[in-house]
Amino acid sequence: MADKKLVESITAMEEDFAQWYTDVCVKAELIDYTSVKGCMVFRPEGYAIWEMIQSELDRRFKETGVRNVYLPMFIPESLLEKEKDHVEGFAPEVAWVTHGGLAPLQEKLCVRPTSETLFCDYYKNTIQSYRDLPQVCNQWCSVVRWEKETRPFLRSREFLWQEGHTAHATVEEAEARTIQMLNVYADFMENVLAIPVIKGRKTEKEKFAGAEATYTIEALMHDGKALQSGTSHNFGDGFAKAFGVQYTSKENKLEYVHQTSWGMTTRTIGAVIMVHGDNSGLVLPPKIAPTQVVIIPIQQRKEGVLEKAFELRDRLGAFRVKVDDTDKSPGWKFSDQEMRGIPLRVEIGPKDMEAGKCVICRRDTREKLEVSLDELETRVGEILAAMQVEMLERARAHRDEHTYVATNYEEFQKLFSEKSGFVKAMWCEDRACEDQIKEKLGVTSRCMPFEQEELATTCVCCGKPAKKMVYWGRAY
Amino acid sequence: MADKKLVESITAMEEDFAQWYTDVCVKAELIDYTSVKGCMVFRPEGYAIWEMIQSELDRRFKETGVRNVYLPMFIPESLLEKEKDHVEGFAPEVAWVTHGGLAPLQEKLCVRPTSETLFCDYYKNTIQSYRDLPQVCNQWCSVVRWEKETRPFLRSREFLWQEGHTAHATVEEAEARTIQMLNVYADFMENVLAIPVIKGRKTEKEKFAGAEATYTIEALMHDGKALQSGTSHNFGDGFAKAFGVQYTSKENKLEYVHQTSWGMTTRTIGAVIMVHGDNSGLVLPPKIAPTQVVIIPIQQRKEGVLEKAFELRDRLGAFRVKVDDTDKSPGWKFSDQEMRGIPLRVEIGPKDMEAGKCVICRRDTREKLEVSLDELETRVGEILAAMQVEMLERARAHRDEHTYVATNYEEFQKLFSEKSGFVKAMWCEDRACEDQIKEKLGVTSRCMPFEQEELATTCVCCGKPAKKMVYWGRAY
Repeated sequence: MADKKLVESITAMEEDFAQWYTDVCVKAELIDYTSVKGCMVFRPEGYAIWEMIQSELDRRFKETGVRNVYLPMFIPESLLEKEKDHVEGFAPEVAWVTHGGLAPLQEKLCVRPTSETLFCDYYKNTIQSYRDLPQVCNQWCSVVRWEKETRPFLRSREFLWQEGHTAHATVEEAEARTIQMLNVYADFMENVLAIPVIKGRKTEKEKFAGAEATYTIEALMHDGKALQSGTSHNFGDGFAKAFGVQYTSKENKLEYVHQTSWGMTTRTIGAVIMVHGDNSGLVLPPKIAPTQVVIIPIQQRKEGVLEKAFELRDRLGAFRVKVDDTDKSPGWKFSDQEMRGIPLRVEIGPKDMEAGKCVICRRDTREKLEVSLDELETRVGEILAAMQVEMLERARAHRDEHTYVATNYEEFQKLFSEKSGFVKAMWCEDRACEDQIKEKLGVTSRCMPFEQEELATTCVCCGKPAKKMVYWGRAY
Repeated sequence: MADKKLVESITAMEEDFAQWYTDVCVKAELIDYTSVKGCMVFRPEGYAIWEMIQSELDRRFKETGVRNVYLPMFIPESLLEKEKDHVEGFAPEVAWVTHGGLAPLQEKLCVRPTSETLFCDYYKNTIQSYRDLPQVCNQWCSVVRWEKETRPFLRSREFLWQEGHTAHATVEEAEARTIQMLNVYADFMENVLAIPVIKGRKTEKEKFAGAEATYTIEALMHDGKALQSGTSHNFGDGFAKAFGVQYTSKENKLEYVHQTSWGMTTRTIGAVIMVHGDNSGLVLPPKIAPTQVVIIPIQQRKEGVLEKAFELRDRLGAFRVKVDDTDKSPGWKFSDQEMRGIPLRVEIGPKDMEAGKCVICRRDTREKLEVSLDELETRVGEILAAMQVEMLERARAHRDEHTYVATNYEEFQKLFSEKSGFVKAMWCEDRACEDQIKEKLGVTSRCMPFEQEELATTCVCCGKPAKKMVYWGRAY
């Protein structure tokens, strides 16, 4: 009994990128909408990608000495209010619990939008002496920010993330940890998600509420918009002073700790979709694909075909492999594999079996390769490895092709009206220029990259002496 | 510089079991209290146990075809209200979000106390035909129940758990899944946590709000109180009818699905503490211990001692091993290992090195064994395996010694006034008897065990004909 339903088509990305994105999210069965406005369901296929991300990141964190913890999801109003910049940044977008059981609460609680305040409270209780430092904790949890406009993975009222929070004896150690974690994120983005990133520092305007310095990794999506993909904050001793987090030093003096925090969220799944996807659906980098290989039997009712498919699956035990033995047609199964972004499909039918070979089709290039069954394991490993590397290279080439330079305001304006991508330009470090650029062009400073270049001597906006080279872009 | 602070003593369990329990939770650094009333911090040592539990359970779930998902943490009031028994059971103990951002919400949202309603909403959207069945999903998350009295791990306003939710075409398949997951829990409790359990069915009075049948595993703590350690519910088609979750059958008819749910929580950590702990602190079964072996160098400033300790650690790479090379005294380190419940400690000093041996001390029995360094890996493996088995045996012996039989009310009353433990007794299945027993003796029915015995022909309470043998106990 063949299934008559064909894989549903998705909007072409050239036609409407936003609709293409939503179509992929829904039709690859990554998400579902819910009765809870602004929130979404992570369906099995979507959550499995998050599990892969978690497992890769968590291992990297632990290698640097991170320990996981879990703190409450609620923050009493008085605790949230202890650090002035922080509460100003977050209070307008939090959800408030006002009733517990059948009674009103004495003090209202917000659902954590982030947990700096709770970690300060915890560290204040548990840190006594320099022997208790550093504290390098992380938690995997969900947070809530009452966004008005929401989009799957990119912006929703509840999202999943990890938030690391550390406390150190010295300024230097805190700064080193801030940069260390940014590097972990950058390495993860490039070597696991195959997404190249620009590492840099956020401007004062764009930094995190309560931070002394915010560092970021910025990626370019297929449509030329920028996506902030991970941030790492150095708080200095600002939070410690607001919350009274102190330790006794070796010299027996009472000192404030220096703190950091750093986070990466489920929006990285959005980045994978928007960097690698195409008009047939999702394209998953092999390292993050919950299923790396799907084996599709051809003429599966012919004797021995299904058995052969399962035999090949067993031989490919070193990879994440499935056999699609549903009663749908091979054509439907090919489209399905493409929609779901499974890196490789292996086609095996009676003729292939006779010839002792199979056909391997790569999702990213659609290249079809005849492979001798004797060499199956080796070739699958080689093709997956090549695909992982080439996906990063292609994304890097795309990013570089869409990175422009402007040395004066005319060029700058022209680039943003004609092109989409990053524009590198010099800046005087004056907030007024940033504000003006945002207002007139809808463009924000993405970061002051660690790798500075001197493109010109004057600010692209006001013409005064330039101090920093900045990546500018339209952001998600 | 030796640390002068000794490991703080804990209350003896014979003196005050509740205080002993709290002392262990705090002094083994499993938890910390917070500014958020009724909520707790899972500190690194406590959360690491939960990570071990998650990893073991998740693997077992996935072997049965479970796929993980994530649904929103909020439930609109109207959704919670769709199933009558369910809302009656949960509404009195939920936290309500009434404001999002700076504005009041049009409809208030409760923070999920459990997610049956959300899963029904999700399944209603995504299940169309028999081809979409079964759906076997699970989520790892935190839930909130506005408890008045709270205790670390056992009862808190927010706790961590997993909740599985499945949808099936037939009654039989739903019942089979309900029992299958109960068996997964029982196997996990016995073979990983070394805690024996009684499997059985809850009475109508004690079943889950909205379920047709609730199955449970019940464990006995060291103080003779019972702990419900995992539950599995068969909902029949009750929720499906309330939410309209239907599918088209092979015969092209519209049918309601049959659903189940099943959950296990962080209270299992409380069970580990209360079943295995002693007056020196925590005792962790090897399979769940984040650190299985701590190597304690003796006279560590003597040449070669620390190097030897790290060499042994490297040789024990198949286990989870740490070296305690802090500047504290060996005596302090021994107490610390005991407090934290690390299964084995390996003592190695200059004399041991000369003799080519080390001393291994088991946490549960405190037995000290001289082990030749040549045999270290083998012996550590053997001792850990023996400890895992013997901990279960000891817990089972304790449980059996504290399980009594009553054939009439006089015996029943006497046992509960003189002993603490399970009492097996016959019951007429009348709710009135259950209510009376609870009111007069403070005792509840724990379960109607799968392994029924005919201890008498009449109900232990009213003397009418008995229908079921029940385990009764005082519960956490």
